[in-house]
Amino acid sequence: MDRVKTAIIGASGYSGEELVRLLLHHPQADLVAVTSRQYAGKTVAEIFPRFASHPTARELRFEEPDTWKLAKKSDVIFLALPHGVAAEYATALLDKGKRVIDLSADFRLSDADIYQEFYGQEHPAPQLLSEAVYGLPEIYREEIRNARLVASPGCYPTSILLPIIPLLRAGLIKHHGIIADSLSGISGAGRKVELPYLFVECNESVRPYGVPKHRHLSEIEQELSIAASTTVRIQFTPHLIPVNRGILSTIYLAPEKYFSSEKEASELNRQINQCFEEAYANETFVRLLGGATLPDTKNVVGTNSIEIAWRLDIRTGRLIVMSAEDSIVKGASGQAVQSLNILCGFDETAGLLP
Amino acid sequence: MDRVKTAIIGASGYSGEELVRLLLHHPQADLVAVTSRQYAGKTVAEIFPRFASHPTARELRFEEPDTWKLAKKSDVIFLALPHGVAAEYATALLDKGKRVIDLSADFRLSDADIYQEFYGQEHPAPQLLSEAVYGLPEIYREEIRNARLVASPGCYPTSILLPIIPLLRAGLIKHHGIIADSLSGISGAGRKVELPYLFVECNESVRPYGVPKHRHLSEIEQELSIAASTTVRIQFTPHLIPVNRGILSTIYLAPEKYFSSEKEASELNRQINQCFEEAYANETFVRLLGGATLPDTKNVVGTNSIEIAWRLDIRTGRLIVMSAEDSIVKGASGQAVQSLNILCGFDETAGLLP
Amino acid sequence: MDRVKTAIIGASGYSGEELVRLLLHHPQADLVAVTSRQYAGKTVAEIFPRFASHPTARELRFEEPDTWKLAKKSDVIFLALPHGVAAEYATALLDKGKRVIDLSADFRLSDADIYQEFYGQEHPAPQLLSEAVYGLPEIYREEIRNARLVASPGCYPTSILLPIIPLLRAGLIKHHGIIADSLSGISGAGRKVELPYLFVECNESVRPYGVPKHRHLSEIEQELSIAASTTVRIQFTPHLIPVNRGILSTIYLAPEKYFSSEKEASELNRQINQCFEEAYANETFVRLLGGATLPDTKNVVGTNSIEIAWRLDIRTGRLIVMSAEDSIVKGASGQAVQSLNILCGFDETAGLLP
Amino acid sequence: MDRVKTAIIGASGYSGEELVRLLLHHPQADLVAVTSRQYAGKTVAEIFPRFASHPTARELRFEEPDTWKLAKKSDVIFLALPHGVAAEYATALLDKGKRVIDLSADFRLSDADIYQEFYGQEHPAPQLLSEAVYGLPEIYREEIRNARLVASPGCYPTSILLPIIPLLRAGLIKHHGIIADSLSGISGAGRKVELPYLFVECNESVRPYGVPKHRHLSEIEQELSIAASTTVRIQFTPHLIPVNRGILSTIYLAPEKYFSSEKEASELNRQINQCFEEAYANETFVRLLGGATLPDTKNVVGTNSIEIAWRLDIRTGRLIVMSAEDSIVKGASGQAVQSLNILCGFDETAGLLP
Repeated sequence: MDRVKTAIIGASGYSGEELVRLLLHHPQADLVAVTSRQYAGKTVAEIFPRFASHPTARELRFEEPDTWKLAKKSDVIFLALPHGVAAEYATALLDKGKRVIDLSADFRLSDADIYQEFYGQEHPAPQLLSEAVYGLPEIYREEIRNARLVASPGCYPTSILLPIIPLLRAGLIKHHGIIADSLSGISGAGRKVELPYLFVECNESVRPYGVPKHRHLSEIEQELSIAASTTVRIQFTPHLIPVNRGILSTIYLAPEKYFSSEKEASELNRQINQCFEEAYANETFVRLLGGATLPDTKNVVGTNSIEIAWRLDIRTGRLIVMSAEDSIVKGASGQAVQSLNILCGFDETAGLLP
Repeated sequence: MDRVKTAIIGASGYSGEELVRLLLHHPQADLVAVTSRQYAGKTVAEIFPRFASHPTARELRFEEPDTWKLAKKSDVIFLALPHGVAAEYATALLDKGKRVIDLSADFRLSDADIYQEFYGQEHPAPQLLSEAVYGLPEIYREEIRNARLVASPGCYPTSILLPIIPLLRAGLIKHHGIIADSLSGISGAGRKVELPYLFVECNESVRPYGVPKHRHLSEIEQELSIAASTTVRIQFTPHLIPVNRGILSTIYLAPEKYFSSEKEASELNRQINQCFEEAYANETFVRLLGGATLPDTKNVVGTNSIEIAWRLDIRTGRLIVMSAEDSIVKGASGQAVQSLNILCGFDETAGLLP
Repeated sequence: MDRVKTAIIGASGYSGEELVRLLLHHPQADLVAVTSRQYAGKTVAEIFPRFASHPTARELRFEEPDTWKLAKKSDVIFLALPHGVAAEYATALLDKGKRVIDLSADFRLSDADIYQEFYGQEHPAPQLLSEAVYGLPEIYREEIRNARLVASPGCYPTSILLPIIPLLRAGLIKHHGIIADSLSGISGAGRKVELPYLFVECNESVRPYGVPKHRHLSEIEQELSIAASTTVRIQFTPHLIPVNRGILSTIYLAPEKYFSSEKEASELNRQINQCFEEAYANETFVRLLGGATLPDTKNVVGTNSIEIAWRLDIRTGRLIVMSAEDSIVKGASGQAVQSLNILCGFDETAGLLP
Repeated sequence: MDRVKTAIIGASGYSGEELVRLLLHHPQADLVAVTSRQYAGKTVAEIFPRFASHPTARELRFEEPDTWKLAKKSDVIFLALPHGVAAEYATALLDKGKRVIDLSADFRLSDADIYQEFYGQEHPAPQLLSEAVYGLPEIYREEIRNARLVASPGCYPTSILLPIIPLLRAGLIKHHGIIADSLSGISGAGRKVELPYLFVECNESVRPYGVPKHRHLSEIEQELSIAASTTVRIQFTPHLIPVNRGILSTIYLAPEKYFSSEKEASELNRQINQCFEEAYANETFVRLLGGATLPDTKNVVGTNSIEIAWRLDIRTGRLIVMSAEDSIVKGASGQAVQSLNILCGFDETAGLLP
């Protein structure tokens, strides 16, 4: 394929807006439709003045979400909708022979019961679960290539899975006792017009939330269990931090191999290093930091990259892995475009800043 | 004692400034001297215009730190100096019969070797270590009452020790495997004129630092070991967050008692609740949050209080305890004034906002 | 009067919350009732956890706004309600013999037609307009003393009127051509749960709004006209800035006296200085900055003070006056408590930080 | 020319860093050298980890600023140096036949005496002043095309000149009485490691500075005088605002034509609209906002665009023009790259986001 026609259903939230940004500047994708009930009739430039210099943004108008019309115009459709709502659109579009990249949680879990447990409602389209591909390109590149339905991962899961999966697969760490402590910018909560997300409520505030059972746990544990070939349960604590974008995850792991001398630590460190190198040395969007630096969200904001660093602690016998990503690019819309690129056979970095 | 004359050596940093604020408004303390080599000759109001409405701030001038003069004027002297420098002043002032509240790390550790390990230099006054009292009033109130030398705790240690000590003492948690993940506002780094603390370097940035062996570990482990009556080693990861003030600590603990049913969890929860109640129900500056709310630094900024909440996670068997404090009040200067109040026999809340 | 019983109608917004804070710690006022339809039944501590250490906050519950009940319990009632709504409560409470301090715009204008022009609705209680006193204590202290109804000024007007009125009264500046350019923190917009006030929409954003005819113009021009004894029209541009609190106003004025030499400038400067000194030297809450420093909102946040600085520009012949205040203390709730103190014959600074 | 080899002298500050970013991604420019005394020997990726995914950033090392070496490697050299220092390098490079784009103030003024008045030192290379072209492409495109030495404008001047020059040229506004009130993010101050730019000193702070005679006045007045064909003096007040990037300027102007009815205002508005349309309708980097919206720095951050809006105030007879730009893109490095594109005959938008 040389070019692809894309549409976004539910383009008025933060991940929708970021998809608009990425697709407006994508060298091989045309953005032919955006939907929003609330903004129907308005141009993209009116609702998102930051894109006003782009000719498409000045002409393209939000429309009502009509799957017939969208299916006619476009080849691949992004769903930037709340969970529970996305499934219905996905079903209709797949029926019309379209390919769908869903940014909601609706198709991330392969088990409808776990969906019900974590999302508190029956799964709206369980027949599609076995087909959907979890859209983490560094892990499922081949599966994405031929997928009809890509379930793009959540922002927290991306920041936690990419650092842990290679270590689990290589058997370097224990599969139990994993703790992930994550700090997220406010856009991660979505463009929710609710009291807790007002400027004055977030600024000069740092707070945990969703303790101890955040919904993203379900997909994190599903993917870690696959990597470990056994059931994995982890501890996960998200926090809200007054920045617009970015997730910083600090992950506490127990190495399989005991180490108590500098020499043992050094050998283990070599193995971990090799494990990460083998997994990610050729991955454009993974930045493995050397021993000298630690991740910082400001280094990845606006990019589709994730920074990963690690330290062995000889005092406690633990391995600490830290990651930083832009929660709305690698953690959402950029990763979805990465899947688009794979689906369409484009260069995987097309339209994305590493 | 009815009133006390106080002085601050090294009043130009953030904890010095906060001590000035607290002492200017203290009902029973007079601030009679402040020192700063850099600002000698200037009034407090010139250097800290926010205090310009206070008559003392308009008249009191920074002076060179001369222990003879200070000893003459004042009864209790606060040291807001870098570690290594504070010890010298403390020695001189104690020799002159004064009482000293030191906000540096110099007298927090009872073991000079551990000081050397963590601070990279020989201890400058080891003979005073056995006498110094660790100034955590909720734990060492009686010792502080008669102390000549109070070593006021660090900001991170305060936020970690107050939540853990009662649980360790009660034998409710295991003493190994403790992880403390802490998020600190930028003032916690002090008023350091260095590149990493520029606005543009901190704003829209979230980052870990000092991994895995931050200096504050030494005093945290010392105090936890006392509480557990055995050597305790913990994992501690500090992060810098773009707020002015506040520390949020999320602490991962393993209960001694295994729980796997809701009923067992509920019983354990009752015991934890009782443990915290017994420890802190009468403590003005500890806010035990019920099951409904989680800590938020914005609730404690400007106060000397610490918020503590906890959750049992039946999925992982862990206890998560979270705390929030103003890093420069309860985590530094407010706590030092709390010690002053105890030393002087004042109401412990004098001049402090709970 | 020795003590006063106070109530707040509409205590759930930012100025209501700040009134709660100030009254909880006021040495001579008791907060006996707070109302909020939305939060009725909840304690103050539940809704505002930052006050949870205060016994009154833990016991006092929000109630429905019933003027009979409120009139029974309290002597002075604060109205922290939207304009248009406040008038009705004021009328009912005055009828019951109570004194009222209204933080809304309902009684700030003496002319009902101007109210209609700027607020787009008929005035709900025009019969009270002649009686209401504009609650700017530095200007109307005597009138406030005996007022039944105080109309507490808006945040922008306070920051603009205090710097200009003395100059106009002294005839030092021309009454035409005045420009006030103001920068306000986000809490100035109130606790409005609307898209433009979300964290992500305000953070890393600076923007003007309400150009060219903001509602506060009406009261600013009314008060400047009184000071100048002639009709004054000014240019006023407010901007939203990503801080929680604070207004910085930069005001451009034309001196009556032409100056083109350093000597003339120096003489004019002396007169301006004298004018401000005469007006404010004895005012606890006005900080006249010398020639060396410029205002900064961080110097006044949390206080009831306003900083005022000025510069003559010999190149343009203009006088630039700059002010900084906490928009929610001196610009709203603090000033209202200042009026309470005057009404009750308390020390004017009772419960307020200068 | 098809491609150009570029170097940056002084690449360690914020405008240097932004130049690096833009040139790394420029489709026709190669970044072949960057200099920094402080960082010599380090790679670009080590100093600016955000560029670590770019192969050039991982290989290119900072070097000492040696004009011989730089002249050999590169065709066009950017100077991102302090004023006073830049001139010396410019002279040496021009002598070697190179073209220079200087981001400092050294060649912005055509009059060496005014340089001395505003910068407090003798001009270091007055012989070059007549040749240097003021690098505001929308105004001096033709002159830039053949320039050997481009003096790229300051951030404040760009935000003020682009909105005013067309109005002055068209005779629509009076040339006296102009007031420009500007709000700048902290990066505008440069990467200065000084107390006032620490996070804690800037966050939750809004403050004017440089009142009344900021250095940028000199170039603003020079260019306005050219546009008006007479000497123009303006009032200019800069303020520091806690955002990383962005300048918002609010400019108060007096229309030549008096208007007092809605009809007259409407006719004048039409003329202003036409004036701006004629000046900028074909300018990719100027966004003329319609009557509905006002500028917001968040709409231009990361782009080379400037937003311009205006309002007539029938109450005061004034015209208010407001602009927003990214102070470090359109206000500095982006504009310099725009000049590079013109110099080299590239598409003017090459490597720049509108």
